[in-house]
Amino acid sequence: MGSVAFDAIETPFGKTDKIIGGAGTYIALSSSFYTKDQKIVAVVGDDFPQSMLDILASKGVDLEGLQIKKGEKTFFWSGRYHNDMNSRDTLVTELNVLEHFDPIIPENYQGVDYVMLGNLSPQVQRAVIERLEKRPKLIAMDTMNFWMDIALDELKKTLSMVDVLIINDEEARQLSKEYSLVKASKVIRAMGPKYLIIKKGEHGALLFHGDKVFFAPALPLEDVFDPTGAGDTFAGGFMGYIAASDDTSFENMKRAIIAGLALASFSVEKFGTERLLEISRNDVDTRIEEFVALANFEMVQTVG
Amino acid sequence: MGSVAFDAIETPFGKTDKIIGGAGTYIALSSSFYTKDQKIVAVVGDDFPQSMLDILASKGVDLEGLQIKKGEKTFFWSGRYHNDMNSRDTLVTELNVLEHFDPIIPENYQGVDYVMLGNLSPQVQRAVIERLEKRPKLIAMDTMNFWMDIALDELKKTLSMVDVLIINDEEARQLSKEYSLVKASKVIRAMGPKYLIIKKGEHGALLFHGDKVFFAPALPLEDVFDPTGAGDTFAGGFMGYIAASDDTSFENMKRAIIAGLALASFSVEKFGTERLLEISRNDVDTRIEEFVALANFEMVQTVG
Repeated sequence: MGSVAFDAIETPFGKTDKIIGGAGTYIALSSSFYTKDQKIVAVVGDDFPQSMLDILASKGVDLEGLQIKKGEKTFFWSGRYHNDMNSRDTLVTELNVLEHFDPIIPENYQGVDYVMLGNLSPQVQRAVIERLEKRPKLIAMDTMNFWMDIALDELKKTLSMVDVLIINDEEARQLSKEYSLVKASKVIRAMGPKYLIIKKGEHGALLFHGDKVFFAPALPLEDVFDPTGAGDTFAGGFMGYIAASDDTSFENMKRAIIAGLALASFSVEKFGTERLLEISRNDVDTRIEEFVALANFEMVQTVG
Repeated sequence: MGSVAFDAIETPFGKTDKIIGGAGTYIALSSSFYTKDQKIVAVVGDDFPQSMLDILASKGVDLEGLQIKKGEKTFFWSGRYHNDMNSRDTLVTELNVLEHFDPIIPENYQGVDYVMLGNLSPQVQRAVIERLEKRPKLIAMDTMNFWMDIALDELKKTLSMVDVLIINDEEARQLSKEYSLVKASKVIRAMGPKYLIIKKGEHGALLFHGDKVFFAPALPLEDVFDPTGAGDTFAGGFMGYIAASDDTSFENMKRAIIAGLALASFSVEKFGTERLLEISRNDVDTRIEEFVALANFEMVQTVG
């Protein structure tokens, strides 16, 4: 579940007209590298191009839960990245169809095992969970500072119902009111999610569970061309990997994080979803080998 | 080679009177966990306590190259850390004996295999290299933004003579004029050092060599009590490990980086050198196991 949208993006490298974006789009495309059995819950207007719906269908995405609102317009976001690519200004936000989004879970979606809730209002995220008749094996969600600012109580209700929260370091600090990410992880996990993934951009990601921590590196890149959707691509790759392997162990979550980071490292190489539409599963596997080389070390017997 | 000094430190957790610090002190103490055969090159005034010299001697540090200037005062630095512990203000810098420091290499220091040049003026660092009759197997150096600001040409001369440069991410960006650390690493290595270690504080460290990169995690900590000397402790642990193993391969440098990070993770737990004086080699080995658990992942055959 996540937004399917139009974006217009400015970076130091150039700018785009309206291109296709949205958390739901990135999650679906990214997870399709691991599973061809996906079901999307989203809403667009009738201005959304059939060609992109065809692409999603070709990736194995069931579109029955994608509502197309006649006479309405698709969600539109426009933003400009600063020179360091780590921060951005929102130029335009037109909610359009998202303003009254009431997620529909088609009958054939019931019984799904793995659910990824892209960043949307915590009420909408919760509605999806409540409309599933069988508790999935794993529910992961993304959120952002905006919901912490204006809907913290709603957010906490939704957090209490999920297994995995995926947020960035600033969001973790805001949500927990703790600067130390170790302390933040304890505060946040006390709100519900047993697993917490903290994304740290160019510095990688942390996974917390019980008293275990995993630190995943990010691939050092020459250029980040467009960070839009990198977090959603990560989340999609993570949940796609978990679903395909049908394994929610901590060890397997580590692998799923590496898969997500590998996909995100492609996503930032071109504007929007362009790079995700070019690459093959073989490219992803090759990049995962780069992550192994990057992070791998082998301590030896006592030295000195 | 490095400063042996007095520090006075303020952090959000408290403040100290004059305590013992200095890059040379931290490097010697940290490397002593791996090698008991060290030789220090430094200068102090006659106000420096014999008790600390005795401690250094007990750790196997040859003090013949430590000049004690009669009637002069030891280098003094005082600083205050901000709430996030990532930045600090210098309150006082009294160069004292460092102002005219002319490093002496005693006869029995000749023939050393491994040299760590702590942060000092690039002229002094170069003097040490030039006064060694035999080229060591590996020379590593630290530096800081101050020398890039006021002595860039001198710094570049010294850089052209060393094998390993150890700096932080901001310094790497300033020295290379590149924001991307991948690009920065190429620019900097073209200045001389074949190996570049970029320290990223709480985000770990990167090692660049040829077309290889290694990303070492930092241990996520609940609290950083006092970051003073963490970088020098890292450098000392790194070079101590290399020296003890007598192995300058890329694979062994990875291990040396983990050893340095483990020692640095202790150093920040208390003010000054206090924690380094309490812990045992066994504590270091146990912490290294935490790093292995933190960074370790094992990809499996194709999923999905």
